[in-house]
Amino acid sequence: MKNDEGGSVERKIIGVIGGSVAGPDVLGIAEETGRLIAKHGCCVICGGMSGVMEAAAKGAKEGGGTTIGILPHTDRHEANPYIDIPIATGIGEGRNLVIIRTADILIAIDGEYGTLSEIAFALKMKKPVIGLNTWDIPGVIKAGTPIEAVGMAVEILSGM
Amino acid sequence: MKNDEGGSVERKIIGVIGGSVAGPDVLGIAEETGRLIAKHGCCVICGGMSGVMEAAAKGAKEGGGTTIGILPHTDRHEANPYIDIPIATGIGEGRNLVIIRTADILIAIDGEYGTLSEIAFALKMKKPVIGLNTWDIPGVIKAGTPIEAVGMAVEILSGM
Amino acid sequence: MKNDEGGSVERKIIGVIGGSVAGPDVLGIAEETGRLIAKHGCCVICGGMSGVMEAAAKGAKEGGGTTIGILPHTDRHEANPYIDIPIATGIGEGRNLVIIRTADILIAIDGEYGTLSEIAFALKMKKPVIGLNTWDIPGVIKAGTPIEAVGMAVEILSGM
Amino acid sequence: MKNDEGGSVERKIIGVIGGSVAGPDVLGIAEETGRLIAKHGCCVICGGMSGVMEAAAKGAKEGGGTTIGILPHTDRHEANPYIDIPIATGIGEGRNLVIIRTADILIAIDGEYGTLSEIAFALKMKKPVIGLNTWDIPGVIKAGTPIEAVGMAVEILSGM
Repeated sequence: MKNDEGGSVERKIIGVIGGSVAGPDVLGIAEETGRLIAKHGCCVICGGMSGVMEAAAKGAKEGGGTTIGILPHTDRHEANPYIDIPIATGIGEGRNLVIIRTADILIAIDGEYGTLSEIAFALKMKKPVIGLNTWDIPGVIKAGTPIEAVGMAVEILSGM
Repeated sequence: MKNDEGGSVERKIIGVIGGSVAGPDVLGIAEETGRLIAKHGCCVICGGMSGVMEAAAKGAKEGGGTTIGILPHTDRHEANPYIDIPIATGIGEGRNLVIIRTADILIAIDGEYGTLSEIAFALKMKKPVIGLNTWDIPGVIKAGTPIEAVGMAVEILSGM
Repeated sequence: MKNDEGGSVERKIIGVIGGSVAGPDVLGIAEETGRLIAKHGCCVICGGMSGVMEAAAKGAKEGGGTTIGILPHTDRHEANPYIDIPIATGIGEGRNLVIIRTADILIAIDGEYGTLSEIAFALKMKKPVIGLNTWDIPGVIKAGTPIEAVGMAVEILSGM
Repeated sequence: MKNDEGGSVERKIIGVIGGSVAGPDVLGIAEETGRLIAKHGCCVICGGMSGVMEAAAKGAKEGGGTTIGILPHTDRHEANPYIDIPIATGIGEGRNLVIIRTADILIAIDGEYGTLSEIAFALKMKKPVIGLNTWDIPGVIKAGTPIEAVGMAVEILSGM
């Protein structure tokens, strides 16, 4: 994409965080969330691996969007097949902080301790976090459905 | 981009490394290198800041390509205006290793100690490094012009 | 220290995590915790900066112990004056993960989102976490006093 | 160690960098270098693994010194047996930057591309680098023997 000066048009980036293993219900929620993010013209950034990360990226590709995967290891070909831009960080779980720093807003879906760690770090960085069936931590904005979560995210982003 | 299964089509990623401050000749070489990389359908990855990084990204946008900027700090809006995908790592100069891990091949242009550090790290990681008027280190493949450098890079990538 | 082969004698390392700003009650708890850790012959590892980190290190020095500070920035002289071994990581908050990976066990004292992030990451890494007046997360072992917390830590370490 | 206020007495930290595989001559030089650093009352910091890193740490323990090992992986028990303070970074080769940021001065011994990368990064960070039979890069201060290298290091440190 180019703007009038030949530069790049900025798009908003929404992070989707959640576990690398998840049941079909959670994966369905993640895929729908990714699809809706793309429909709203935003990029999806995630950890680039399996589970919620893969489902969200798959949904975003269905919706015609762009997907960024911030990988823990050193081989970018480890990314799931729905990642357009795989980044091989080589810094292990430290890559979670890169996701949060790069995202404008986060949607957390389900998840265990890793997701909790990301939620807490995002709140520390003062990034808004919308939660779908995830940890109930003060500061997380609860949503009931993907359509509600993405709607909230887009509204918050429009005021940024 | 989507492939037949709805996934992402892989594109090759070429890293352009060089100093954040450079004279007009070097900047011209970097811009032309970026433009040629884009014309060959490859992504440019770089450090996302000024100097050689900005010139290469500017060239890539002129050539219709996609640009990834791996930033040292925590604010992705620090990226130069030609970066499509800014990644805010927050790991300082450690971000140089992320560029090299993610790139399939590197083109080094001019540069001082920081560029030497990246060249050496790339060679350690067994990534090919093509040099344009840069450090003369055993293992660097020397090129005389951007067209020669990008031609070599594309040829090496086609055999990978 | 040397063992019979001239090598180093391993000592256990206990991480103390908590906020960089804290009231006098919390600081008193942190200092007492550090002192008791040292009395049990263990090293203290912490973030090396102010607040709970400084109080715990101060206590450890009072107790005759060794203190390691894993710093976020690039200047090791930023460490508080009670740190024996300051490590200048330059990776920002990513240094929290280094504390947790290096510690054998963690004691969390008070704290806000940053501490929650560390607790969650430690639990993900399957490191025991003992909590003193901190986040009530499943998996955290609650203690009422420094003497109880350090006693639990030493008992768990003796069984490792 | 304590100073009059009960804090920690600062000691200078000398980094020893070099390959993880080396011949007996190089290992002898590294061990002697470590021993002399300890005799001068300075700490050794290194990568904590095999080769030059292990020999330098072994020498430092022979000399009665303290050794810090900045490890690439997540298990601190991977450190060689001569490391007093093992730091498990989990950031892979990015740990090299932590060594350089923490050291006051570097002594480079032999080594291949990894060592070159560290030398270049140190020079970029404006840390003095003394070279023993290593890469001939402008800015590296050449020494002929361990005694000469450590003597130069101590002299430079005394003027800092």
